[in-house]
Amino acid sequence: MNINQLQKKIIDKKSPVVVGLDPRLEKIPDEYKKDGKISKALFDFNKDVIDGIYEIAPAVKLQIAFYEKYGIEGLKAYSDTKKYAKEKGLFVIGDIKRGDIGSTSQAYSNGHLGNVVYNGIKVDDFEVDNVTVNPYLGEDCINEFIEDIDKYDKSIFVLVKTSNKSSKQIQDIKKDDVTIYERVAGIVNVMNSKYDENYGPVGAVVGATYPSEMISLRKQMKNAYFLVPGYGAQGGGAKDVVNAFNEDGLGAIVNSSRGIIFNYEKIGSTVKEGAKQAVLEMNKKINAELEKANKIYWK
Amino acid sequence: MNINQLQKKIIDKKSPVVVGLDPRLEKIPDEYKKDGKISKALFDFNKDVIDGIYEIAPAVKLQIAFYEKYGIEGLKAYSDTKKYAKEKGLFVIGDIKRGDIGSTSQAYSNGHLGNVVYNGIKVDDFEVDNVTVNPYLGEDCINEFIEDIDKYDKSIFVLVKTSNKSSKQIQDIKKDDVTIYERVAGIVNVMNSKYDENYGPVGAVVGATYPSEMISLRKQMKNAYFLVPGYGAQGGGAKDVVNAFNEDGLGAIVNSSRGIIFNYEKIGSTVKEGAKQAVLEMNKKINAELEKANKIYWK
Repeated sequence: MNINQLQKKIIDKKSPVVVGLDPRLEKIPDEYKKDGKISKALFDFNKDVIDGIYEIAPAVKLQIAFYEKYGIEGLKAYSDTKKYAKEKGLFVIGDIKRGDIGSTSQAYSNGHLGNVVYNGIKVDDFEVDNVTVNPYLGEDCINEFIEDIDKYDKSIFVLVKTSNKSSKQIQDIKKDDVTIYERVAGIVNVMNSKYDENYGPVGAVVGATYPSEMISLRKQMKNAYFLVPGYGAQGGGAKDVVNAFNEDGLGAIVNSSRGIIFNYEKIGSTVKEGAKQAVLEMNKKINAELEKANKIYWK
Repeated sequence: MNINQLQKKIIDKKSPVVVGLDPRLEKIPDEYKKDGKISKALFDFNKDVIDGIYEIAPAVKLQIAFYEKYGIEGLKAYSDTKKYAKEKGLFVIGDIKRGDIGSTSQAYSNGHLGNVVYNGIKVDDFEVDNVTVNPYLGEDCINEFIEDIDKYDKSIFVLVKTSNKSSKQIQDIKKDDVTIYERVAGIVNVMNSKYDENYGPVGAVVGATYPSEMISLRKQMKNAYFLVPGYGAQGGGAKDVVNAFNEDGLGAIVNSSRGIIFNYEKIGSTVKEGAKQAVLEMNKKINAELEKANKIYWK
């Protein structure tokens, strides 16, 4: 599924919300752990979250670290979850933050954006619609993903300005009046320039926790979709994320993880119902702020 | 195994060579592929390489991208390979280049430097002695690894100056006379400062392809072990890597992947013999250059 197909889902569902599937075993209710298998506990929990949200949100994001933590069993859950999310029509983002030198970046791309055929069998355990990419090694490493973007009709989000506190340390260093994150934004623009679509396949991660950087980056990268982390648990609010959207009310998706998947604890409901209520609430809040800013697409 | 134990192995074997286990299915001889299973082909090939080198090299480095490319089966081979390398007494580096915000970095750290106990069973599929870490998100992300470094007596290598061409694009940006890679080197120094050992557990990745940067970084980070990629196939030679060592002839390990594991093609031997000959040759070349520079430890 490409960025334009994602956009169609956003419009159909009137929702720019990405549900972050970052399960933590210690927060998953015991009823999911009865048979003692990690992969089943993680997947069954995710399945209930997906069942609660697939009709009202366009996308999910799987933070692979929370699966890698549990080894092979954890990654089986990653693979099962992304397959189930696809079946339910969701756009699936693998939040993998990979990036390496030439042929190594290509191997990551082949495994996560594409697939490998071996002995006539397709290996697509980790194939998703979109992955996040770390730019510290420069553009040759990001470029390795472009071949698979074109071949499989996929997309990526490049880390531009991350939501954490110490993102300033490297990303905000300014030389000749240009910060590192603006340089990365420049690489994103160059990569998108070869595509005709309104939004190119190279998106940007821009944290909700830095509102003024968000405003300037939105202007700088008109043709890039933004993936906005930092909403909710990390401190970003609906007002902050409005600046991630273009004037037409499109161009951004907003992620929330803990606030959605663990909402059942807060409201004392099932996992499914908790996730559903959290997304409905988040849709409402963001849409209200978009309306106030005169940026609503689906009036 | 910690950095000092690695150093003991380096001295015992008179070798600072790291064997990069980056298998590519298309370059693995057919005899390894008879039963059609990816995990078996990758592991059996790696096993022969390890059998050829474990007495003459102190460490192996597994580039996880070449395993992730093949999904769950690929990562089974990653897990089996690192276990076998441990059995053979090798220091094992997971070249994973991870790095993320707080709790997510911690999850990576738990999975790759430590282990998880669930229902009384230890999950340590990916636990290795050392992993590489990407610093684009700043020090709070690197700090998340420190707890497990201390708990499990492990170490990390932070990407400082990578060996690829476009590493200049972000890493070389200089403000107030300090480049980004020097800023990252400064973070490495601060993290090592709390440890008493001659070499702290926070090492640095510095590419062999940038000799002058290597010289200045060696001076800047006296207490950090260097992991030096870029030898051989990427263009760095034995002369270039000598500058990665401190005056006492220690403080660096040099990685070669393709030049060792695929040497059987070049010399028309078995995989095991090819790897062995390549390491012997590399040991000889690097030791000769260290001797010339009056930096040899094991005279």
